Amino acid sequence: MNKIHTIPLPSLRRLPRYLNILEKMLDAGKTTVSATDIAEMLDLKPIQIRKDMAFTGIVGKPKIGYSTDTLVRTIKEFLGWNQQTKAVLIGAGSLGTALTGFEGFSRRGLNIVGIFDNNERKTGSPVYGRPIRPMNEFAELVQFHEVKLGIIAVPQENAQQVADTMVEAGICGIWNFSPAEIHVPDHVVVKREDLAEGLAVLFVQMQEHALSRE
Amino acid sequence: MNKIHTIPLPSLRRLPRYLNILEKMLDAGKTTVSATDIAEMLDLKPIQIRKDMAFTGIVGKPKIGYSTDTLVRTIKEFLGWNQQTKAVLIGAGSLGTALTGFEGFSRRGLNIVGIFDNNERKTGSPVYGRPIRPMNEFAELVQFHEVKLGIIAVPQENAQQVADTMVEAGICGIWNFSPAEIHVPDHVVVKREDLAEGLAVLFVQMQEHALSRE
Repeated sequence: MNKIHTIPLPSLRRLPRYLNILEKMLDAGKTTVSATDIAEMLDLKPIQIRKDMAFTGIVGKPKIGYSTDTLVRTIKEFLGWNQQTKAVLIGAGSLGTALTGFEGFSRRGLNIVGIFDNNERKTGSPVYGRPIRPMNEFAELVQFHEVKLGIIAVPQENAQQVADTMVEAGICGIWNFSPAEIHVPDHVVVKREDLAEGLAVLFVQMQEHALSRE
Repeated sequence: MNKIHTIPLPSLRRLPRYLNILEKMLDAGKTTVSATDIAEMLDLKPIQIRKDMAFTGIVGKPKIGYSTDTLVRTIKEFLGWNQQTKAVLIGAGSLGTALTGFEGFSRRGLNIVGIFDNNERKTGSPVYGRPIRPMNEFAELVQFHEVKLGIIAVPQENAQQVADTMVEAGICGIWNFSPAEIHVPDHVVVKREDLAEGLAVLFVQMQEHALSRE
């Protein structure tokens, strides 16, 4: 399992992009694909594609390229997307609702088995066919389904408390959609997803682009 | 404006995190702050903080640190968050709705002046107090408000068409929340925001973490 320790973050981030276009190629009946094909579609360099693919353990054949099917299977396996992963979500506001209904998640094996909110007026009402549950059912559901992944979709002032509740129930991976900095024990992994970060990158790139064309 | 060309992406991505905690410090009456203070709160190294801050043009004083207020103002200015930026959004589904209501955006100067959808049954109904507009009003609104930034929140099969419509109307920065790879002319900047990317990173980090503790 050495591979897991050695893939750089930018390479890891590109794998879902590759998977997206490879699946479309497979649907279109394209059974082999070269690094150059992929590079052209994504505006990247072929050498980059070859390096990234090598992290998943797959090597193309000279002049033939890769088997599209093998690439799709290997990337999915590498990312753990070939199996279902159960998750719970806390915070049934508009962001939590959007995440629950996000088609991209179920396609990638993410199965949100419980949606929770501390607002009693919300509990019971359905979100994409699943009822919003009260917080006092949280620990039991997490333990019953052996859920390891928790999604935080609450306002930032409540994020730390929600994270503590998750950790206490046995969650060891937290996907934090609030801008709060949360603190967790060493055995827990946190992935921040701050939309303002994307906004910063976009604003600065737009300014840069405008200047370079003056 | 040389600074814009030289800031590396990871540094740029950290600036919104710094801003978040600095604003809280300011609210709490903390008028000066050291790189070490910030580093501790974010689990980063002080040298990293100093380097990142230097890209915005600000330098701390030895033994005193930074003026919190100056840091907040300088980062905001650097990111263009000290002024309002108008944006339009296409796709009033659950993701589009969540983005429209996202409190973090208005705090960062993003003002969504128009929400559009091609579904006639949706047009007219309000999203966070703003009416969903039909697509035939798109170009006029963009030109009237001189909007430069467009947000795509439609399913991936419609993303390219929506991007074309945006470019034609004069949009030169696109924030793409669909997993589609969109193609635009050279003068347009695209920022992809694929939530599956975060999921990939989280899954692999959880596996890695579990293995390192075995």
